[in-house]
Amino acid sequence: MNPGGTQRPRAAVVLTGSELVTGVIVDANGPWLARELTTLGFEVVHLLGVGDRPDDLAAALRYCAAAGCVLVVTSGGLGPTADDLTGEIVAAFAGVELEIDDALQERIAAIVSRFPRIDQDPAARDAGIRKQAFVPRGAVVLEPVGTAPGLVVSADDGPVVVVLPGPPRELTGMWPAALASPPMQALLATVPPAHGRLLRYYGLYEAEVAATLRALEQECDLSGVEVTTCLRRSELEVDLRPQPGAEDAARWLAAELVSRHANRLVSADGTSTDELLARTLLDRGLTVATAESCTGGLLAGRLVDRPGSSAYVQGGVVSYSNAAKTALLGVPAEMIEEHGAVSPEVARAMADGARAALDADVGIGITGVAGPDGGTAAKPVGYVCLCVTTASGVVLARDRRLPGGRADVRDRSVDAGMHMLLRVVTGLR
Amino acid sequence: MNPGGTQRPRAAVVLTGSELVTGVIVDANGPWLARELTTLGFEVVHLLGVGDRPDDLAAALRYCAAAGCVLVVTSGGLGPTADDLTGEIVAAFAGVELEIDDALQERIAAIVSRFPRIDQDPAARDAGIRKQAFVPRGAVVLEPVGTAPGLVVSADDGPVVVVLPGPPRELTGMWPAALASPPMQALLATVPPAHGRLLRYYGLYEAEVAATLRALEQECDLSGVEVTTCLRRSELEVDLRPQPGAEDAARWLAAELVSRHANRLVSADGTSTDELLARTLLDRGLTVATAESCTGGLLAGRLVDRPGSSAYVQGGVVSYSNAAKTALLGVPAEMIEEHGAVSPEVARAMADGARAALDADVGIGITGVAGPDGGTAAKPVGYVCLCVTTASGVVLARDRRLPGGRADVRDRSVDAGMHMLLRVVTGLR
Repeated sequence: MNPGGTQRPRAAVVLTGSELVTGVIVDANGPWLARELTTLGFEVVHLLGVGDRPDDLAAALRYCAAAGCVLVVTSGGLGPTADDLTGEIVAAFAGVELEIDDALQERIAAIVSRFPRIDQDPAARDAGIRKQAFVPRGAVVLEPVGTAPGLVVSADDGPVVVVLPGPPRELTGMWPAALASPPMQALLATVPPAHGRLLRYYGLYEAEVAATLRALEQECDLSGVEVTTCLRRSELEVDLRPQPGAEDAARWLAAELVSRHANRLVSADGTSTDELLARTLLDRGLTVATAESCTGGLLAGRLVDRPGSSAYVQGGVVSYSNAAKTALLGVPAEMIEEHGAVSPEVARAMADGARAALDADVGIGITGVAGPDGGTAAKPVGYVCLCVTTASGVVLARDRRLPGGRADVRDRSVDAGMHMLLRVVTGLR
Repeated sequence: MNPGGTQRPRAAVVLTGSELVTGVIVDANGPWLARELTTLGFEVVHLLGVGDRPDDLAAALRYCAAAGCVLVVTSGGLGPTADDLTGEIVAAFAGVELEIDDALQERIAAIVSRFPRIDQDPAARDAGIRKQAFVPRGAVVLEPVGTAPGLVVSADDGPVVVVLPGPPRELTGMWPAALASPPMQALLATVPPAHGRLLRYYGLYEAEVAATLRALEQECDLSGVEVTTCLRRSELEVDLRPQPGAEDAARWLAAELVSRHANRLVSADGTSTDELLARTLLDRGLTVATAESCTGGLLAGRLVDRPGSSAYVQGGVVSYSNAAKTALLGVPAEMIEEHGAVSPEVARAMADGARAALDADVGIGITGVAGPDGGTAAKPVGYVCLCVTTASGVVLARDRRLPGGRADVRDRSVDAGMHMLLRVVTGLR
């Protein structure tokens, strides 16, 4: 469902840097800014990456303006060296001169003086500081988070251009100041609230959502609600974004989707599986231990990814070899011989062994064939056995045939393990 | 160093999908395609993300053509539903009609029939198959890797447009066929080889490279060599790309950079640390075991990330609690009491314990304060102790104060551990 005529103010994100267009780096700023702008109620129409070439950046700005964008956010190109040209090009785009800001120059110099000077020529350093203190006339200066200041530039009859530095920490750190600037405040006053909703499912197919949407369209006009589905971490995220005026339709649609696929719903407000699992373990005072073979520590790594996880993660064992399964987890060698290292029996013994070795309430065992080698007719690549056991005798076991290559099988095994843990601990009293 | 006038054929990547411009997903296709195109010798000038809106995609194609691109690669929008419009829009852009390809329709139907039919309306399914079999007249069809075929479309006086599906596995799987298509072969014949070089360093600062470059510019004209530096996994990647005619200058520059910073060079041909470590372990018949606290299994996960790693990874222990350090790794409780769980002594005992418990030649122990809590004046957040020990008595220990937040500290600890392992196993005979 894609509303033909969009009614939301349009915005664009322009990312600069040769490392983007040569594929040296996967950019995190673009998605971050796109999500921020969408949440604020803008319609992000373009996300552009351009190299450090002045003409290409100028062309990108003109393109965004021609596409009807009232806001363009740029990242990168604010450094001290001569090929960092964003400020100059944005000034030319807005039709204003660059002027030196003496007070800003002093503030940048003070910041730079606190950094260790690595092999750097003082003349080059001073030239860099001076360059960074040139500001388009009338622009709002955003104080440096690193060493580079940001800018908010309003062009007559053109978009507001917010100019941010490239390092993600600096960009996200400067964003609140950009939002608070008078030109952004004036613009935001004209933006209708987003009223977006994110539903999270596990085990639901996109085609099922599509079928439900087709049925619901017979009951209600949903043309004003943009629905985007996205598979991430084996979950289906269903993102609902109403055009202004379609908020009620979006609310109704969300309620219907929640109730029609309730058995596979993870959260109705976008809360992540990791967050839900952490909260539940903490609320119930439970601890968890892992025993991993094919996933090689990835599940443990995901569990301890959260601050404060030491309160509920006891630890884990990566038992890649059979000897480790026996020595560290107490899996009987005969069991491995009889059923194979990849078997429901061994997965369960690993879960029990992890619980015992690490003195935890809940244990999980994962053993599988991640490939590319090691598959057989009976146990092909992608065959994974998972088991969660608890001190109180609960056992949840699954044998899965997971699709994809080695990395896919491992990632999907971790995803499956997270959902099995969530299911078990949610059921425990 | 950024050559003002570019002499390489220009290319662009256009990614479609609302999930991109709302920030729901971080795109992997863009960087992957950008790197492929750069390696082939194109100059990628723009990377564009657009929503599923026909006008915006058409505008993006015109923009790339206006920017002088001889090649545009698109991803996404080839699905069976009505809002997947890339084929139609590319046909209109190239000024040709869409025609049904009956044989293709049958092949797609055969593929779809192998998928489980989930709740899907047969009429909708058949309409979807038919839609996917419409092909711009004269286009080369790329056989489906999933269910959607790709396209190579040549516009008169316009760029070659390669149309690929959005799922990364399908996109990368279809790429060789796209390259082999007659329009791409004709285009590639006009592209000068890239002659790019990637130098990989650990422990080298960008400012040091910049200083070296300034010095070398006095000795040789380097204006034809584009140098991009990128920090990734704590390593500094220095990417050298010559314009046609500047190949010798690039070769000289690479040799100088290698020799001037030889002590921190990881590889002179871009080979990854993971690959070097795996090769060395295999070559020397050595096995490794891990004991992780603050990194919670991430190092083990990274080691077993490679196919065939079971030949040299014995396994690991994630000893998040002190009890686990003692029970599974034999770290004396008194040692933890005396020196603290985060101490050089415990890191070494963990390395030895992992080696013993898992019967490995090389052990590594990592214990640290990842934060955000748990820091003290003596052991602040970011303080990490690492130790590698071997059966033959080699010990390499490091205490580091790593910057950044929890995720940064953990990632940098894993990076440091990988480099310490590489250093030790490279030195072992």
